[in-house]
Amino acid sequence: MSSPRKVVELFYDVVSPYSWLAFEVLCRYRNVWNIDLKFKPAFLGGVMQGSGNRPPGMIPNKFYYMNTDLKRLSEYFVVPLNPPLNPVEAMFEKGSLNAMRFVTAVAEKNKEGDGPVERVSRELWKRIWSTDQDITQPASFIEAGLKAGLSANEVEEFLTLAKSQPMKDKLKSATQEVLDYRGFGFPCIVCHVNGKAEVFFGSDRFELMAHCIGEKWVGPQPLKPTAKM
Amino acid sequence: MSSPRKVVELFYDVVSPYSWLAFEVLCRYRNVWNIDLKFKPAFLGGVMQGSGNRPPGMIPNKFYYMNTDLKRLSEYFVVPLNPPLNPVEAMFEKGSLNAMRFVTAVAEKNKEGDGPVERVSRELWKRIWSTDQDITQPASFIEAGLKAGLSANEVEEFLTLAKSQPMKDKLKSATQEVLDYRGFGFPCIVCHVNGKAEVFFGSDRFELMAHCIGEKWVGPQPLKPTAKM
Repeated sequence: MSSPRKVVELFYDVVSPYSWLAFEVLCRYRNVWNIDLKFKPAFLGGVMQGSGNRPPGMIPNKFYYMNTDLKRLSEYFVVPLNPPLNPVEAMFEKGSLNAMRFVTAVAEKNKEGDGPVERVSRELWKRIWSTDQDITQPASFIEAGLKAGLSANEVEEFLTLAKSQPMKDKLKSATQEVLDYRGFGFPCIVCHVNGKAEVFFGSDRFELMAHCIGEKWVGPQPLKPTAKM
Repeated sequence: MSSPRKVVELFYDVVSPYSWLAFEVLCRYRNVWNIDLKFKPAFLGGVMQGSGNRPPGMIPNKFYYMNTDLKRLSEYFVVPLNPPLNPVEAMFEKGSLNAMRFVTAVAEKNKEGDGPVERVSRELWKRIWSTDQDITQPASFIEAGLKAGLSANEVEEFLTLAKSQPMKDKLKSATQEVLDYRGFGFPCIVCHVNGKAEVFFGSDRFELMAHCIGEKWVGPQPLKPTAKM
């Protein structure tokens, strides 16, 4: 392909299940579309507060629908989503600030390749959105980091780094970037097309996004077309 | 096709632009999928109130996004959406109660075929969501009705019928049906599959919906596949 790869930024928080869907789909399409996928860990709590948005779970019917919707999407997208027993506690009371600082630290130290940040993010999503495990304690980050293939030393280093002011600032600035794009939730996907930033919210605009960046959407499993049948 | 046609109900209000997108897409797919499409005019204000939902326009960033999103979708779906100059006034202050009572009257008197209710709904959408015209006054319903191919006598009859208690009750009961399905906005699409009601909210679940009803999604213009290129 001769045209330059289009930069696609995925702003996400592992507390957000729709972000997980978008993350897996973009990881698959990274090898199909002519794009340069950039992971941008950010903090959902900050985006909600900064935009004045309220979580959908506050409206009982929306909360009910979200459960059905996620169940259907999980099957169709082939992402092992399984809501925690107490989603309100897991998502809003416990929150993801420390988790996203940890992911930010991993992302910061692995700028050359996306491998570690991708794997660590996925392990954290699996914890909160598949096996109903904690994502707030250091022990949880250690477990996720080791499962993601990091060494014990690396995990220790990231844990320390995650508590540093530069990492806190880095997460804050990624969150501010979302607000500057007038975001109000996650996933927030920013496609840089001909010098213009095209912002998409949610995991349900891929067909439209493909159209905007001149690519083709063939469903959530581009590498296994027969699996869709 | 030998299997029975699946009933797909579209609950909508002409005040909702995303409902217009869903309406046009379903009108196109009615001739492609093995479905029996039923138009269910209902009242968005009642659904919002009954579910405790708030319009997305209340969050400035969501409102901004909705404009961009609708512009992109309008082009991609090939539906001539064009937001009114003052959407807050058009959507929330003026509202759609009388418009939806009028549509309900048309739907009630034309149970044998969907022609009139389809055309009248489209004309009302065009007024509010394309040419920024009123949809609250009798004169507006007369104009829309005539454009939709009704005779002056028919329009008069529908105008009178729209004010009757049975039509008010009919609209109320369609709105209650949405709340019974735990709906919280429009479009609300209910697919009856193997005795189960699968509820989809929004105009961005067609691919998933197709998967659920055993059909194939080929983009918003199924009858003109080359137009997607």
